Amino acid sequence: MERVEKILAGDIRTAAKLIRDIDDGIPSSREVLKALYPHTGRAYVVGISGFPGVGKSTLVDQMIQAYREAGKSLGVLAVDPTSPFSGGAILGDRIRMQRHGTDPDVFIRSLATRGHFGGLTRSTRSVIDVLDAMGKDIILVETVGVGQDEVDIVTTAHTTIIVLIPGMGDDIQAIKAGILEVADIFVVNKADREGLEKTMNDLRVMLDMNNAQGNAEEVWRPPIVATEAISNKGVAELLSEIEAHKVFLFGHGGARLREHLRQKAFRELIDTIREKFVAEVVYRLKNSEAFESMIDDLVDKRIDPFTLGDQIMAERINKCLK
Amino acid sequence: MERVEKILAGDIRTAAKLIRDIDDGIPSSREVLKALYPHTGRAYVVGISGFPGVGKSTLVDQMIQAYREAGKSLGVLAVDPTSPFSGGAILGDRIRMQRHGTDPDVFIRSLATRGHFGGLTRSTRSVIDVLDAMGKDIILVETVGVGQDEVDIVTTAHTTIIVLIPGMGDDIQAIKAGILEVADIFVVNKADREGLEKTMNDLRVMLDMNNAQGNAEEVWRPPIVATEAISNKGVAELLSEIEAHKVFLFGHGGARLREHLRQKAFRELIDTIREKFVAEVVYRLKNSEAFESMIDDLVDKRIDPFTLGDQIMAERINKCLK
Repeated sequence: MERVEKILAGDIRTAAKLIRDIDDGIPSSREVLKALYPHTGRAYVVGISGFPGVGKSTLVDQMIQAYREAGKSLGVLAVDPTSPFSGGAILGDRIRMQRHGTDPDVFIRSLATRGHFGGLTRSTRSVIDVLDAMGKDIILVETVGVGQDEVDIVTTAHTTIIVLIPGMGDDIQAIKAGILEVADIFVVNKADREGLEKTMNDLRVMLDMNNAQGNAEEVWRPPIVATEAISNKGVAELLSEIEAHKVFLFGHGGARLREHLRQKAFRELIDTIREKFVAEVVYRLKNSEAFESMIDDLVDKRIDPFTLGDQIMAERINKCLK
Repeated sequence: MERVEKILAGDIRTAAKLIRDIDDGIPSSREVLKALYPHTGRAYVVGISGFPGVGKSTLVDQMIQAYREAGKSLGVLAVDPTSPFSGGAILGDRIRMQRHGTDPDVFIRSLATRGHFGGLTRSTRSVIDVLDAMGKDIILVETVGVGQDEVDIVTTAHTTIIVLIPGMGDDIQAIKAGILEVADIFVVNKADREGLEKTMNDLRVMLDMNNAQGNAEEVWRPPIVATEAISNKGVAELLSEIEAHKVFLFGHGGARLREHLRQKAFRELIDTIREKFVAEVVYRLKNSEAFESMIDDLVDKRIDPFTLGDQIMAERINKCLK
């Protein structure tokens, strides 16, 4: 396929077009992705997540600069699941990265939409695969917010960074376990702000409670890095910690990396099946004779959606699942 | 069931406990929801969506006040899909509504989490059903952001309001068709800000392009209401427009309402089936003999997830779907 060859050669126009097709859910993009799949898995993927306003984009901009100085090529993906608006805050953020816009070794894209049945995670993974197949050394994936979508997205990364700012002390207690478990590195950005020590201490206490068991060789304890991205402070240390986490992940005879890749592959497979299944079920239900009366039964409260859903699963689907 | 009786009687403690169970995904909540289902459908549900910072919570607070003055009881649900943090901005927003906290006819809840396979829309609908079964006249559902999750959530409402602010003129062109199609009413809040007329005009032009066809009796043209929620300006007009939309929705011999309820029921059914299906497939795949080698094949790139997903669907699922 000509598109495949071009992307493997790093062609920006072809890649940009494919990424747009993925974002728009164009079916032909699937065939290209299938052909690219064997060529993926070479890039190192770093996920960066955190609330709007913590300075993620400035941090990402400085990370790009630092990786460029180290001679690495980059793919950068900004994901904003909160907004099908293409403008707004995210646009301002992109502008901050413009200084890299003319660098042929930095390819920056953003994703904002998703299919009706929730395909943003799927799209993000596909775009990461495209950047990977293009031969980028490092892929930075920035997401807005720290919700479930973002967690799903960042866990596809080799190293996941959660960015906080000082003064979130009270909120840290409210961080749900899910976030804690996915963070490989915590960054406290805007470190010049009041409350830095308290926030870092709160994080340490939380990690102590969470990671009481295990010894240092077997368990990764997320380091906490203070940064002032705007003046480039702490960025070199952050890159060192990413490298340390990479060494940890690739160590142990490759067993950890393999486990990471297996979990990632499983989630990808489930997402793909779910997407197909929902499309199939919607199509078949809508075209079944019973459809109209089923919906009437629901509207007229002769049955509830849980019971009907269970019935449909039992009659039409469960017995066939092997 | 005692819990069902108590909720039908409007008992706040029992309802609050059930809503927590729904948010946490406790299976027993399903049984209560099934029993409540026949008692739902009496409340009028209004969805309010828009970016953070447009003043939604202040607007909701004023709407609560106005509905209370009209003698209506209210259920209010704040949904924040961007964050499993329970603190942060949303907490500040809730505080703004505190003046209604002691009013027994105003029941305010928030939802922030969701199951791993994306059950926020499902949870939100369930909580709306609980508030409805409690006998509330009006249910206000506020969501942060205008992404797909929010669209799914607000479309369960009878009337959907999208809140903007002046100066979003350039961004309006970027509003994806999805948002336009779900909005029954546009609010331009913070109307004292510069650019009000431009934003309202941009909206009008956009609606003109979208709604060129059809006559006034058959097609609802979303009105645009300018508000200054902070000083309660425009709120009475907004309530009139909601009432006008209700009259439209309930008119035409009930056909429009029926169609709305049918679409809602269909989406609910699909969500329920998808949730069950994913749980079943994950369980069965993980326990199948071929599982380990399947995942190895993916990790070692002997097959791609699209092709494998298609195979699993074809071999195990498709032929059984009726």
